[in-house]
Amino acid sequence: MQRVKPGAEERFPVAGPLVEAVRVTAASPSLTDNTADADRLRRALPDASSTLLPFSRLAAVSGAFRQAGFAGWAVVNRLAMSNELVDFTASEPRLLGMALDLGTTHLAAELIDCATGRLLTSAGRPNSQIRFGADILTRIHHANTPAGRAELQAAARADIQALAGDMAAAVGCAPADIRGLTVAGNTTMCHLLLGLPPHTICREPYIPAANRFDPFPAHELGLELAPHAPVLLLPNVGSYFGGDLVAGILATGMADRPEVTMLIDVGTNAEVVIGNQEFLVACAGAAGPALEGGIARMGMRAAPGAIERVRVDPTTGKVCFQTIGNAPPQGLCGSGIIDLVAELFLAGVIDIRGKLRPGRHPNVRQIDGRYAFVVADAEQSGTGGPVFIDQVELDNVIRSKAAMYSILTTLIGEVGLSFADIQRIYVAGAFGQHIDPRRAVVIGMLPDLPADIFTAVGNSSLAGARRLLLDENARRLAAELPGRITYLELNVNHAFMNRFSGARFLPHTDPSLFPSVPRPAD
Amino acid sequence: MQRVKPGAEERFPVAGPLVEAVRVTAASPSLTDNTADADRLRRALPDASSTLLPFSRLAAVSGAFRQAGFAGWAVVNRLAMSNELVDFTASEPRLLGMALDLGTTHLAAELIDCATGRLLTSAGRPNSQIRFGADILTRIHHANTPAGRAELQAAARADIQALAGDMAAAVGCAPADIRGLTVAGNTTMCHLLLGLPPHTICREPYIPAANRFDPFPAHELGLELAPHAPVLLLPNVGSYFGGDLVAGILATGMADRPEVTMLIDVGTNAEVVIGNQEFLVACAGAAGPALEGGIARMGMRAAPGAIERVRVDPTTGKVCFQTIGNAPPQGLCGSGIIDLVAELFLAGVIDIRGKLRPGRHPNVRQIDGRYAFVVADAEQSGTGGPVFIDQVELDNVIRSKAAMYSILTTLIGEVGLSFADIQRIYVAGAFGQHIDPRRAVVIGMLPDLPADIFTAVGNSSLAGARRLLLDENARRLAAELPGRITYLELNVNHAFMNRFSGARFLPHTDPSLFPSVPRPAD
Repeated sequence: MQRVKPGAEERFPVAGPLVEAVRVTAASPSLTDNTADADRLRRALPDASSTLLPFSRLAAVSGAFRQAGFAGWAVVNRLAMSNELVDFTASEPRLLGMALDLGTTHLAAELIDCATGRLLTSAGRPNSQIRFGADILTRIHHANTPAGRAELQAAARADIQALAGDMAAAVGCAPADIRGLTVAGNTTMCHLLLGLPPHTICREPYIPAANRFDPFPAHELGLELAPHAPVLLLPNVGSYFGGDLVAGILATGMADRPEVTMLIDVGTNAEVVIGNQEFLVACAGAAGPALEGGIARMGMRAAPGAIERVRVDPTTGKVCFQTIGNAPPQGLCGSGIIDLVAELFLAGVIDIRGKLRPGRHPNVRQIDGRYAFVVADAEQSGTGGPVFIDQVELDNVIRSKAAMYSILTTLIGEVGLSFADIQRIYVAGAFGQHIDPRRAVVIGMLPDLPADIFTAVGNSSLAGARRLLLDENARRLAAELPGRITYLELNVNHAFMNRFSGARFLPHTDPSLFPSVPRPAD
Repeated sequence: MQRVKPGAEERFPVAGPLVEAVRVTAASPSLTDNTADADRLRRALPDASSTLLPFSRLAAVSGAFRQAGFAGWAVVNRLAMSNELVDFTASEPRLLGMALDLGTTHLAAELIDCATGRLLTSAGRPNSQIRFGADILTRIHHANTPAGRAELQAAARADIQALAGDMAAAVGCAPADIRGLTVAGNTTMCHLLLGLPPHTICREPYIPAANRFDPFPAHELGLELAPHAPVLLLPNVGSYFGGDLVAGILATGMADRPEVTMLIDVGTNAEVVIGNQEFLVACAGAAGPALEGGIARMGMRAAPGAIERVRVDPTTGKVCFQTIGNAPPQGLCGSGIIDLVAELFLAGVIDIRGKLRPGRHPNVRQIDGRYAFVVADAEQSGTGGPVFIDQVELDNVIRSKAAMYSILTTLIGEVGLSFADIQRIYVAGAFGQHIDPRRAVVIGMLPDLPADIFTAVGNSSLAGARRLLLDENARRLAAELPGRITYLELNVNHAFMNRFSGARFLPHTDPSLFPSVPRPAD
């Protein structure tokens, strides 16, 4: 377990949670009112005619209602097509709901009181599927057999159950008190969780088995939460545009407003959506690997010991850095890498192609037969070895930033707009949380816009899952979104390929696109 | 297995069956139409927006759809609040549906092609719960413990599975081809099938755990039918007015028409409903035991060897009888008992209190220390002993017929009508199938109305279950009926008690109520 924060005081708006408790005081049975127990209870509910009582809960619910003297609290799941009466308690139940960001490398979860919107605790843990493959393609390959699929599903199930157990324990409850679960994950993660074959996702024409998932009881997935606790996944839009980004759209509210905004989520892929209440166009591409932990040798998640800020004095060459938690440096997180590349460029330590220029700085050294720039010496670091970036990794960063910029320009071109038309750019994820947008502009990753256009929105995948848990309009919107989003397939887009070539320079082959970026020292 | 009739040619009207196959031909996936498999299939259905794809069927259905080249037949359950997409087949599936009359002593079932309404076969078997108690009260007592409840439920499940297996085998299919099950049973039978505690049914104020049951997948009951085959039970109205009689209302159509009709179902209880499209009033009472197999020593079900007709010549005293299937006599079924009592009365062998008059007929003999009337000698019978009715049994018949007439007069009085206002009286069950209504009038069991008012409707419980399977209007009506029926509790009705006393004579203490019945020989 990592990062459990009991006793957090945050509170989120509640407007029709997925699970509700309804106060019921029914007349006692008599010869003149011999309605059956279950029907008496259902009759007392505000939406009796649209409320189902699942067979597997019939005996327990009607028994508890009688036991409680025909008064107490009915627990009702609010699903799209019907309500489900799933429990009855004599005293007011705690309505714990779990929101989950099912990430490829990391799971993040929150435990929320669905009645009050209060954040009770949160937790995270690495995705255990990593032992079957760090990257998505390896896992998809592993899922080619039913046995492999079962292993990956079991890993996801165990992770979720562990998070549920950790968070419940942190607030003095049991997983059986968790009465609903909402999940945001990319398309492959959703498939692996649900045991669906994912192999068609990564082959042209890139067709998932399913994009929309009707809610189902947690026990059908083998999760031990409250009886008949609903599991609701955010829908995916396509193979490379998953529920995690649909969650981001929900979290930013961009689909509800007239002004045109953009959402950028950099994870394993870069996923981008542009639009407003009238239109939404999305695309995704491989732009993230170099910026993510586990891929670059020195890259790491934004966690204690990660270098998140770097300055290289263009005159003296002095290198300063800042780590998360002020711990001894262990590696570079995404924002640290972008800072570093921008600073190296402005100080003239790398050229416009991103190539290290030996002799320009004492920290440019040979490591394992390659040129590298050492940010922290072995003596300073928390690993016993130097923290550095080498030429191969630099090349990866250049490719990633070029891909990102090309994605953004292709997308904006496809909708007939220019960057000047964008009112706001939301940058999601740990990446967005920590980067300095100005530095991302310097390397030509983000367009040359005023810094205050960029807004970090944190883990918008988790935030969207949380909205799904607490807000019935969000659930309605989530169901609509896949039908409202036009997905642009970049893998077959020639304009994208051309743009990509031009973007593989710092900041760009056409510097007029980046008027605010100074020419580097030479 | 009993009475399997393969190759029956009967065909029933189909108007929105519970399970349908929908022909689907979807466009193949492409880069310009990369809708996910499951969503592509759902999109091709006429009611896409109200169709759920249950999680447990998601992988199988989307996989089968892809396997079949995106064309074939979708199997859809038509439930009240949503449709369920539960299967996909490359070639047109047989849509087998099972209708079940879950009787206290006997189960009767039909296997029907839901697409054509064709009756494929039928089957029956004794209720295996009988080993835990022949009568309902013993079974309710047995169900007081969870273990007892589980035993009774397992017996019901095994009976249904056996019937499903027998019928499927008779038409060259497997139980896994049965895609839907509708069930009509009395309130206690429904509770025992579903594992609900039935003990409150038989204690004042007579409150069942549940009267309405939302459809649920057969596997949740442990039945091995087609995956996610829905089980739909007819709702009950109250403890003593079950889904079997609601089925009878459906089968007769009495709730859809302007004329006032009456439905009488004699099983363990006598259950009666009167009404039309405007009103429905029902009641039930213990009137059947003496007329039913397993209770009276010589009583038996209407099966081969049962005496169903008796004549006693009032002049010569000659006794003639007819058995079902012309087999050697083994006992008396309900119609035989009524015939016999009427004939004994008209011939003066019993008095108006139903007491045997020794010396009036040579067949009045002492058996086991009691007076009895021998219908068939040991030499004639199929059992090796005589077939007879003794005084204790005669007293039971008198009580039963008195109860029945009192129920009818109480009910008709409560709705402010007289028997002359009734356009038709449906008599349900094996009892109704075989009795001679004139003989039932002679003993004062049924009111003195022209014989053509009485219509035998056979197993209306099974017929109602069949309508539920084939007709969406019947499903809608079934859901409404409990709310439309006023149930009259006779156990606390003083008028009923007074009427009962007056009705314990042949035909009645007030012979003017039965003008057509001749005075017996004296």
